Amino acid sequence: MKRILIILAAMSACLSASAQQALWSGSQVESPVINEDGTVTFRYQAPKAIKVEVTGDFLPTQKMEFEMNGQKVSYDAPGVRELKEGQNGVWEYTTDFVVAPDLYNYTFRVDGNNVIDPLNMWVNRDVASLTSVLLVPAPGERSDLYAIHRVPHGTVSKVWYYSETAGFDRRLTVYTPAGYETTKAKYPVLYVLHGVGGDEDAWVTQGRATQILDNLIARGEAVPMIVVFTNGNISQEAAPGENSTGYTRPTMRLPKTMEGTFETAFPEIVKFIDGRYRTIAKKQSRAICGLSMGGCHTLFLSLNYPDMFAYSGMFSAAVGVSDPSVSPIYQDVDAKLAAYYSKKPALLWIGCGKTDFLYQANMDFMQKLDANGFKYTYMETEGGHIWRNWRIYLTEFVPLLFK
Amino acid sequence: MKRILIILAAMSACLSASAQQALWSGSQVESPVINEDGTVTFRYQAPKAIKVEVTGDFLPTQKMEFEMNGQKVSYDAPGVRELKEGQNGVWEYTTDFVVAPDLYNYTFRVDGNNVIDPLNMWVNRDVASLTSVLLVPAPGERSDLYAIHRVPHGTVSKVWYYSETAGFDRRLTVYTPAGYETTKAKYPVLYVLHGVGGDEDAWVTQGRATQILDNLIARGEAVPMIVVFTNGNISQEAAPGENSTGYTRPTMRLPKTMEGTFETAFPEIVKFIDGRYRTIAKKQSRAICGLSMGGCHTLFLSLNYPDMFAYSGMFSAAVGVSDPSVSPIYQDVDAKLAAYYSKKPALLWIGCGKTDFLYQANMDFMQKLDANGFKYTYMETEGGHIWRNWRIYLTEFVPLLFK
Repeated sequence: MKRILIILAAMSACLSASAQQALWSGSQVESPVINEDGTVTFRYQAPKAIKVEVTGDFLPTQKMEFEMNGQKVSYDAPGVRELKEGQNGVWEYTTDFVVAPDLYNYTFRVDGNNVIDPLNMWVNRDVASLTSVLLVPAPGERSDLYAIHRVPHGTVSKVWYYSETAGFDRRLTVYTPAGYETTKAKYPVLYVLHGVGGDEDAWVTQGRATQILDNLIARGEAVPMIVVFTNGNISQEAAPGENSTGYTRPTMRLPKTMEGTFETAFPEIVKFIDGRYRTIAKKQSRAICGLSMGGCHTLFLSLNYPDMFAYSGMFSAAVGVSDPSVSPIYQDVDAKLAAYYSKKPALLWIGCGKTDFLYQANMDFMQKLDANGFKYTYMETEGGHIWRNWRIYLTEFVPLLFK
Repeated sequence: MKRILIILAAMSACLSASAQQALWSGSQVESPVINEDGTVTFRYQAPKAIKVEVTGDFLPTQKMEFEMNGQKVSYDAPGVRELKEGQNGVWEYTTDFVVAPDLYNYTFRVDGNNVIDPLNMWVNRDVASLTSVLLVPAPGERSDLYAIHRVPHGTVSKVWYYSETAGFDRRLTVYTPAGYETTKAKYPVLYVLHGVGGDEDAWVTQGRATQILDNLIARGEAVPMIVVFTNGNISQEAAPGENSTGYTRPTMRLPKTMEGTFETAFPEIVKFIDGRYRTIAKKQSRAICGLSMGGCHTLFLSLNYPDMFAYSGMFSAAVGVSDPSVSPIYQDVDAKLAAYYSKKPALLWIGCGKTDFLYQANMDFMQKLDANGFKYTYMETEGGHIWRNWRIYLTEFVPLLFK
């Protein structure tokens, strides 16, 4: 048995130093820990560090601003707290408040540099940086929808389609609900769009969309549906590591994201999905939603193809941003709105946070709808332009579809 | 246009601090950079750091050893190099050698703590730690198989099956080759198993298996096949973040990994795959391979189910490790070997690195095969118990299958 243990140890020893450390040191340091009183403790081992902080959206926000072209733009940034050094160079911080059930992102800041929590294997890429994930689920709370439960799970696939517009294959993430493979049923389709800097991975990692779908369907609160997560950067084949063009640098905005090409090319995605999957290929069984830039895409896809989607969801949508001079897609908004509503969409759903910098733009947009007597559903939440809100909007929007 | 820029900027501003930094600072710092002369430059911005190092398998290894139960175990650990601080707190190291085309993992070590490269979006989880990825592809070189090319891509799906043995749903990664969805053809199936600490994600992230398959099939060097990546930790539902049991701590070895339960339960996976996919459900069209612990699993699955797999690949296999007292699966090896060979398997393929701590164990195993006149194919490579070798073995094994 001793020999077996040694061999097993050696099998692991060839792994990275921190992995070994976890095995050999028998370290009992854990992070994050949700304590019985609802507070959360974060720990980071760094004997040589001078200052260790934690930042994340579980902390109260702080007002920040930056200047661009001589104008000030203010926004709510996550708070920052210092950890205190204890024994063996283990730094620690426990919240002095109960952390409400939700899904949060956090990173440590060690002597000024952001690092993820090496004691937490759950990491999401958020555009151009990695963050550690803290999930505080609780029965009956919304965040319970973000957790994995022992319910039937859909299949999540990375699928490539040929884009005539781009001239190369591009990647989609496709969710087929539990039962898709074992029945001959046809399903409605929801298209879900990401924001600036995101890609076809964003909604299934940061957005927990497939968990939300699994759980809502298992509860009977949503109908089984196919969900398609597109990559809205038409110049990009796929997420980092999946591109033929080499390294993806952390530049935030790729070319051709909001100049109409993605919207112009969208029908080829719908055609591909209807050809590949057992869809109900008609307007009443097709929905679309998106966050931020994806909310802008959602609006203009709905307006330019008024026979395509019966349900549209604009989450913190970048309305008022599109430039009519760059594409016909963004022109004649009023006429297109009238045509869209004349075809009686089942739902236009709008969600925005009170401190979102796009709040006023969304207010203006709804005022225009009101002035014309165009119906929509509006949900206002606390906070700003953050994933926490987009997950909430998805959990609200999905149960309204295809009923 | 100015207003649009500000809104777009604000849309990004709500992201993490390092993402913002990438946008606002207009930083031109890039890392890693493959230079024209074949050297590679690594950069890390840390104005307050005292010491910044880089470690990774692109560097010559160094001999390391540790003690366990009074016995010394030695292994080859990646080398370490210091970065030098330049302007603006940007630390830099350029190799003094040409980095051979291959796929490597590296991390920075900042004042003793491992951190990934924040300027490189391509990150893999290796068991219990994250590493940055460096790919040096070159036409005609093996590493070109690890790159994404503009060739037809298969679909990669995360699929859940119900395990009678475990009593809950478990996750598989399934690759269906390009053309699977557009034809009615039936396909052979290759099962690919990970090592200690891995899961159903390991071979498609660290192993680049789906890229290897795409490229070999596109070149006509491998036949189109379905590939199934199992999770060999039978007590685990799925990879971190996909479990109902909460956080996955960086403990390296889960319960029930090498005591026969996974092997006993394996037929339920084969049954599921043959039921769900258009497979050619017979021995001649079924193959299995695995690395380290997965090599042990491969051997005992081949021996205990001699009518299941025609092709078996043992990559740095943990032979001589299994304990016959824990399961009938590991008993009567000689008799099972004789029965296995009497049924004329198409291929038993063995690969091992010269400095692998399992080298002697593999030599002993092959000596036993030789003594009995049992045929096998052996490939010996430089280096030890590392992903670089396992990718090589996969590129060698796959072209031999189903022909």
